[in-house]
Amino acid sequence: MSGKSIDPVGGFSCPLPITDYKNVLLAHGGGGRLSQQLIERFFRAQFSNPYLDLLHDGAVFPVEEGRLAFSTDSYVVHPLFFPGGCIGDLAVYGTVNDLAMCGATPLYLSAGFIIEEGLPMEDLWKVTLAMQEAAKAAGVQIVTGDTKVVDRGKGDGLFINTAGVGVVPPGVAVGPRNARPGDRVLLSGRIAEHGVAIMSVRNGLAFDTAIVSDTAPLNRLVASILSMPEPVHVLRDPTRGGVASALNEVAASSRVGMELVEDLIPVAEEVRGACEILGLDPMYVANEGKLIAIVAPEHAERILGHMRAHHAGADAVDIGEVVADHPGVVLMQTRIGGKRVVDMLSGEQLPRIC
Amino acid sequence: MSGKSIDPVGGFSCPLPITDYKNVLLAHGGGGRLSQQLIERFFRAQFSNPYLDLLHDGAVFPVEEGRLAFSTDSYVVHPLFFPGGCIGDLAVYGTVNDLAMCGATPLYLSAGFIIEEGLPMEDLWKVTLAMQEAAKAAGVQIVTGDTKVVDRGKGDGLFINTAGVGVVPPGVAVGPRNARPGDRVLLSGRIAEHGVAIMSVRNGLAFDTAIVSDTAPLNRLVASILSMPEPVHVLRDPTRGGVASALNEVAASSRVGMELVEDLIPVAEEVRGACEILGLDPMYVANEGKLIAIVAPEHAERILGHMRAHHAGADAVDIGEVVADHPGVVLMQTRIGGKRVVDMLSGEQLPRIC
Repeated sequence: MSGKSIDPVGGFSCPLPITDYKNVLLAHGGGGRLSQQLIERFFRAQFSNPYLDLLHDGAVFPVEEGRLAFSTDSYVVHPLFFPGGCIGDLAVYGTVNDLAMCGATPLYLSAGFIIEEGLPMEDLWKVTLAMQEAAKAAGVQIVTGDTKVVDRGKGDGLFINTAGVGVVPPGVAVGPRNARPGDRVLLSGRIAEHGVAIMSVRNGLAFDTAIVSDTAPLNRLVASILSMPEPVHVLRDPTRGGVASALNEVAASSRVGMELVEDLIPVAEEVRGACEILGLDPMYVANEGKLIAIVAPEHAERILGHMRAHHAGADAVDIGEVVADHPGVVLMQTRIGGKRVVDMLSGEQLPRIC
Repeated sequence: MSGKSIDPVGGFSCPLPITDYKNVLLAHGGGGRLSQQLIERFFRAQFSNPYLDLLHDGAVFPVEEGRLAFSTDSYVVHPLFFPGGCIGDLAVYGTVNDLAMCGATPLYLSAGFIIEEGLPMEDLWKVTLAMQEAAKAAGVQIVTGDTKVVDRGKGDGLFINTAGVGVVPPGVAVGPRNARPGDRVLLSGRIAEHGVAIMSVRNGLAFDTAIVSDTAPLNRLVASILSMPEPVHVLRDPTRGGVASALNEVAASSRVGMELVEDLIPVAEEVRGACEILGLDPMYVANEGKLIAIVAPEHAERILGHMRAHHAGADAVDIGEVVADHPGVVLMQTRIGGKRVVDMLSGEQLPRIC
């Protein structure tokens, strides 16, 4: 376990494990000795924990009586490395956040790798380290996994699927159907940073201030909000499709309307500028470290204060309200005084953003 | 929900849902309206169940106190459709079987689709139906999922990841470290059928008797064996890398040797013939509906009888024993009287077999 030192994303460095191959071969996914070596030296060495170490077809762990949350996402982000993160931490935080949006405490993740033949071992190693760091940061364990290799030209470097399991604490009842007229819509911070970071790097744009992805775990912020006596009705992380799509989904599920105030929705100056250059509406751009909480009006101030006390919610704001009128429709009061419909994204604004 | 009737794998037919598109577009994975339509009309319509229907970021279900098993696999099989099955039932049965090999009763699956732009909608629909049928056959529910689309030339039609959660009944203690000298090695049926079915179709080989994949759920066979008073030490399904790799892994984990008898290992005549033509050793060829059970010698006969009473284990046989000598090494007494080492598969025998 030694070799040349590399400087992976995140600034920490760690020697690349001994491998006879500079690039991943088809045989690394064949289920034989090379597969075993890759799994042992990369994943098992980094993700080490008592459940994974059993090397069975799956992990077995104890649970208490109660409710479990279960979620999955595949990550196909392009490029694999981008300002503020890489596919590895995205894959961990994405599923951690999906579990958190169910009101759950995320505990265990699975990781399924689909590698294109020829991927530099060093890239796979950087991603592995990023996943390990992200799992540590979120307080979850990667307990089971799978590695497949597809022929050159039949993939795109690396795709990662993660699934996750978490426990929903007794009494928690968040769900997309629970928004009620009068509720306030709280947003945990500035939007559109993940999508703009990816698009800037893809389009070779340089800005005075680097725009970095907001990729971050939200489970501790959620745990903190849910520990308050004031109930939260809906939690949602506005990823693909952005704030607009997330709120449209909730409006449809809860059969309510929403009225937002454009001026209240925080967008960093450089992000707004980049959106203009790229022809994007920040409301539709993906976030990977933000959440929307919908709460009763009488509790909004207190919950907002609580969110702001947490670093992941430092810039939290109240962006509007849930209304009984126009169910399924999200309206926004614009800066120039009019009202516009914030529709669901109809096509593909940003492909392969996560 | 009408349209032309198609005849999907398995012989059942079902109208293709209305879609304006003959092929999958990038926008079907963008998180907007087209994504929502695809999910609604294909996956949600077919996989319908109370947990999935909540359309949240994840599924929430009740659990009793005890032990859970959690497993994942990505499926990249090429071609997507092959004699005896398709990527859809493979993806369901594969994860169901991995959970069963942990001694668990599989309950809930996730499904993550990575679709290459341009995949015919009809193919995706056939796969969806096959998954629904497979889930029904195995008695599991697909409760949460994710759909991504990658640009043309950056995937290969369709990759599917499934993860699964199951409950391990009290008292069950199967694990790859539990094989003991003296134990018998039981195999549930004829080997190498999945791999040979795939390779035949890929190489355009035709045989007098069609060789079909053995893809099948093993959870009911496992439940039946585990309900017996006689304990099972190890369960393993010999998928990628075949029986040889599976037994080598168990021999290494349990620090024991194994002695097999070649003549006792069942291989169908046409499969043996195809292996000769294709230059394959059946011991290394993938199975998708077979299991190995390692049990105490005094219980072997009874457990074998029990296996044979189940259709998935009708051809079950005792193929050899666990020994204290040569730990980590699997030996086989050959047909001509000698002994040879059945080594771990070192490279890639059959790429993209599952």
